[in-house]
Amino acid sequence: MLPAMSIVMHDLAGADPDLRFSPYCWRTRFALAHKGLPVETIPWRFTETEAIAFSGQGKVPVIRDGAEVVSDSWAIAEYLEDRYPSPTLFGGTGGRAHALFVNAWADAVLVGGIARFIVRDLFDVIDPKDRHYFRISREQRFGTTLEAVQEGREERLAAFRNQLMPVRLVLRRQKWLGGTAPSYADFIVAGTLMWPHCGSPFALLAGDDPIGTWFREVQALYGGLGLAAKCV
Amino acid sequence: MLPAMSIVMHDLAGADPDLRFSPYCWRTRFALAHKGLPVETIPWRFTETEAIAFSGQGKVPVIRDGAEVVSDSWAIAEYLEDRYPSPTLFGGTGGRAHALFVNAWADAVLVGGIARFIVRDLFDVIDPKDRHYFRISREQRFGTTLEAVQEGREERLAAFRNQLMPVRLVLRRQKWLGGTAPSYADFIVAGTLMWPHCGSPFALLAGDDPIGTWFREVQALYGGLGLAAKCV
Repeated sequence: MLPAMSIVMHDLAGADPDLRFSPYCWRTRFALAHKGLPVETIPWRFTETEAIAFSGQGKVPVIRDGAEVVSDSWAIAEYLEDRYPSPTLFGGTGGRAHALFVNAWADAVLVGGIARFIVRDLFDVIDPKDRHYFRISREQRFGTTLEAVQEGREERLAAFRNQLMPVRLVLRRQKWLGGTAPSYADFIVAGTLMWPHCGSPFALLAGDDPIGTWFREVQALYGGLGLAAKCV
Repeated sequence: MLPAMSIVMHDLAGADPDLRFSPYCWRTRFALAHKGLPVETIPWRFTETEAIAFSGQGKVPVIRDGAEVVSDSWAIAEYLEDRYPSPTLFGGTGGRAHALFVNAWADAVLVGGIARFIVRDLFDVIDPKDRHYFRISREQRFGTTLEAVQEGREERLAAFRNQLMPVRLVLRRQKWLGGTAPSYADFIVAGTLMWPHCGSPFALLAGDDPIGTWFREVQALYGGLGLAAKCV
């Protein structure tokens, strides 16, 4: 079943409205594309809380599907799977339950880990009106300046790459995190990697990392949705 | 369908044959119990490679199910799911594919992490005939003595506990890693935790960690299989 009209999605953008780099919005973009659902994205900045007040909270992604409004990338994935079951995002009830572990790992390990490599770079690409909010909120979270968070990143790279070992181990045994076909697990991890890929010039993955090969294959899906993304 | 006779499983044991502490054998024990399959375990020590030579490799778990011999805990889980589909271990094809990520995370993060807290304790409980092999192989792996690996563990505990965050995040949203019912994902993580639980007196989890509550619930399944386990 297709929706009566395009799904509308508020999507984090930089000063350049075509620069989209949110790790959570990218999970949703891939999920919508997987379902074959047309989407109209609206560029949104961190401080535009009024623009999404209709969702009852202040973060993106938010989707509006006719009368339905859903926020939070995981809740959106569950909504899409229930409302438009085919093609499946999760591969059944066990697939959904276990994908939540991948989501939790990406949130706890990937997002937190990657932020320490690119948060100062992101400051350069976000909209000028977001800069005060971004610096204050992130410096409070990390307990130091954006500049200090990112400092010495080359020396920390090996340890970070080692943390991606679970992904590498899975890809030794199957083509996608979803098995023989891409699933939401692929979109969780690849969506999160779109964040440094688009928002920072820093190369997080080694050139010979098999995760890089898989990441490009996810980007190539759905007419090259990820490959076409504007990047800094 | 039930097998014609009990499945026979070679299970790592300590000097005390009733002390079973392998993180991989415990994954298999829980999987067999979940399937309701009768099992006869044979205590096995690291150096008894001839006793499992019939499996074509040198590690446990190994199961013999009539004419079928399967080694490696993941391969055994897949074998059991295919041969005895109900009750399900994975919850469908997506569940199986995504459980491989949990397995990879447990192998890369949990097993490696936990070893650094208990490897010297394990030396005390393994069979005397295994000690030379155990010390040499583990000291080669870690590049230092068993004593040095375990040193300063109290100071490293907070960082280790923080690495368990993905499990905690999932358990905030669902009762089991498998969702509304336990799945092989629960057995992977709980089976791995049986290793320090049975093999070492050191308390890895904080008393108020929700993972501890869930772990006791997994142990209580199948007539209290995990609760009845002999521990040091």
